[in-house]
Amino acid sequence: MVEPLRVAIAGLGTVGAGVIRLIDANGELIARRAGRPIEIVAVSARDRAKDRGVDIARFDWVDDFTALAQHPRADVVVELVGGSDGPALALARATLKAGRSFVTANKAMIAHHGLELAQAAEAGDAALKFEAAVAGGIPVIKGLREGAAANEIERVYGILNGTCNFILSRMEAEGRDFAEVLAEAQAKGFAEADPGFDIDGVDAAHKLSILASLAFGTQPAFADVAATGIRHVIAADIAEAAALGYRVRLVGIAEADSHGLFQRVHPHLVPLDHPLAHVTGATNAVVAEGNFVGRLFFQGAGAGDGPTASAVVADLIDIARGEFGPPYAMPAASLLAGTPADTGERRGRAYLRFMVEDKVGVLAEIAAAMRDAGVSIESLMQRGAHADGSVLVAIVTHEGPERCVAQALEKLRGSTSLVGQPMWMHILQ
Amino acid sequence: MVEPLRVAIAGLGTVGAGVIRLIDANGELIARRAGRPIEIVAVSARDRAKDRGVDIARFDWVDDFTALAQHPRADVVVELVGGSDGPALALARATLKAGRSFVTANKAMIAHHGLELAQAAEAGDAALKFEAAVAGGIPVIKGLREGAAANEIERVYGILNGTCNFILSRMEAEGRDFAEVLAEAQAKGFAEADPGFDIDGVDAAHKLSILASLAFGTQPAFADVAATGIRHVIAADIAEAAALGYRVRLVGIAEADSHGLFQRVHPHLVPLDHPLAHVTGATNAVVAEGNFVGRLFFQGAGAGDGPTASAVVADLIDIARGEFGPPYAMPAASLLAGTPADTGERRGRAYLRFMVEDKVGVLAEIAAAMRDAGVSIESLMQRGAHADGSVLVAIVTHEGPERCVAQALEKLRGSTSLVGQPMWMHILQ
Repeated sequence: MVEPLRVAIAGLGTVGAGVIRLIDANGELIARRAGRPIEIVAVSARDRAKDRGVDIARFDWVDDFTALAQHPRADVVVELVGGSDGPALALARATLKAGRSFVTANKAMIAHHGLELAQAAEAGDAALKFEAAVAGGIPVIKGLREGAAANEIERVYGILNGTCNFILSRMEAEGRDFAEVLAEAQAKGFAEADPGFDIDGVDAAHKLSILASLAFGTQPAFADVAATGIRHVIAADIAEAAALGYRVRLVGIAEADSHGLFQRVHPHLVPLDHPLAHVTGATNAVVAEGNFVGRLFFQGAGAGDGPTASAVVADLIDIARGEFGPPYAMPAASLLAGTPADTGERRGRAYLRFMVEDKVGVLAEIAAAMRDAGVSIESLMQRGAHADGSVLVAIVTHEGPERCVAQALEKLRGSTSLVGQPMWMHILQ
Repeated sequence: MVEPLRVAIAGLGTVGAGVIRLIDANGELIARRAGRPIEIVAVSARDRAKDRGVDIARFDWVDDFTALAQHPRADVVVELVGGSDGPALALARATLKAGRSFVTANKAMIAHHGLELAQAAEAGDAALKFEAAVAGGIPVIKGLREGAAANEIERVYGILNGTCNFILSRMEAEGRDFAEVLAEAQAKGFAEADPGFDIDGVDAAHKLSILASLAFGTQPAFADVAATGIRHVIAADIAEAAALGYRVRLVGIAEADSHGLFQRVHPHLVPLDHPLAHVTGATNAVVAEGNFVGRLFFQGAGAGDGPTASAVVADLIDIARGEFGPPYAMPAASLLAGTPADTGERRGRAYLRFMVEDKVGVLAEIAAAMRDAGVSIESLMQRGAHADGSVLVAIVTHEGPERCVAQALEKLRGSTSLVGQPMWMHILQ
């Protein structure tokens, strides 16, 4: 009989329970595919008594997460505790130091400490795997690390946060405003009580920085991701975008070229003929564009216990098969330090929306600011007074450097004609 | 210095030349990712003198394909000759018998001889890899074999032939008929002079049978794929489908359940809210539905030298890394023999289209045939006389067993009221 791969799980929330349920349900099939059984031997969580809908009495219970690293029977530790530091990081360090493999769904920890952990894994000939950390059940880490490995990746981008996409899809379908849809999503459990992590783009930024390292062979650089969320998108933006043939999506995008490493999470206008425009609800999707393969598009459930457990166990199967190598596709020591790109020189088209007072000369003021900054206007829509008496002015620019748009907005920022802050969205090309 | 992975290439058509170009362009990056360089050492093709736009003088030239299996310096042979039998198969057998790894883009050979070749590979601890055989550059073999490996796959399906999708997209965009668009595609080189292999669904059937084995752990069973192509789809079918909220796509679909293994390539009506409906042009896309991951969707270029070379070299990188195992995810000996499912019991909704003579009683005849066979009609459209005086009748049925639809059509087949054969398309659910 072949030895099973023995697994210890830290964290028994919905994903941890999902991993147990998955191995219970598909264990025989997994053993056929992996060449040997995958067997859970130990678990650890905060509350031993909590009913999780799965029987955990058959596993060793360990009170202290970190002790799993030394569990006498575990070959691999699966970390589903969360948090970029604290117990999760302590467990990762201890496990890899012990020369054991480590699987995690923890995007924050990998975004912040991935390089250190990869070095520790390589030093101990152990696996460090984190498929579940990006885009839930979609095998996009594998897609970049292996599937597209023959290519120079020109850019990688996608819809990386299901909560934001759910909210934007609802706003789009129902014409409602952000705050209203967020409240509904919170009531239904699709958004956290403290939603900032999702809606301000931090979660997507974590995932983007992981994808960028894999795609470009650069050291993880989460601090260099410029993240703007969807808090300031209004129903009228979505309607204007629709009238122009676009949908609004929170897109994380990374590119590496002679200007450096560019990483940004920002609301974008996505043209209807682009596959990202058709990604609705809490779905995730990732596009990788390679110099030989062209555009690869991966879509699936970005969260949830089933999809996340699927990714965690896929990593375990790779480990059981012995099919794993350096976590970032190449040795951590050979990852290059990416210089952050100057976005000012980045060329693109912009959507700009202003709420202005309904008085003479406002349009001239906006138009003058654009002209003075060298921003060329492709189209301009002015829509008559809203309930509060303000008027919407939406502009789509011709392609040009972002620095010009920034200058124009800077010039207008002091204007007494503007109601609230202008909205700037990039148009995905 | 680490030893390179040394490669011999049989076949220097567009894909073979593409592989050389890719390794020339991305070789340094590939060496970083693979942990060692990938080096072409020998090539073989029919015509040594032909200008392929790449320098082949630096490689050993071998006149006889099969001799590459014994080339003194090659670790791996890449076969890009094509054909299910003949030199390609002889080369595969000889290479694997010599205990060397084998990479191929040859869907016909894998569909027919995959099981035998997998056994030979496993016996020699060599790799047999065929990512490029299905859906060009999309890493869908890897997606099933590894990415979704934790799941029981409920069904796998997709758009597996770029030529057909190109033709259907054009018919849709321009309202033209099949023959006209095919002629244009042939003139532009998007379709072969002898297009039967593509448009009759044989090529898609090869790919589907490969996906089915990987998804369900069943022995390849190409002979059991029921393949119908797009030859009889008319512009009016596409217009009727559009009016009902569908697009027409040639879908290969496989399911395994208690009824057996179901494999079919057939034109389908795809609802607009399904991602396959938005796959246009010569693109391929594959959907895998797993019991934990839900729906995974992969899209990309299904053919062309760059994408196909990308998949071939991804396989070489896996081999260079030593990250490979049994070709069908599990040992060939443990693949189950799938019993072909009885499609008569398969339940679904159907689109049926008749061209009929414009005379009294035809509609009653059709309606009676449906009633007698137990087919419940959801909607029926009759469109006034065409140029030849015939009338179009399109029916969408409620869900029911396919055997009833088959009976109704059988009953009508002898009718003198019908002009030509009825069209039956399945509605994708």
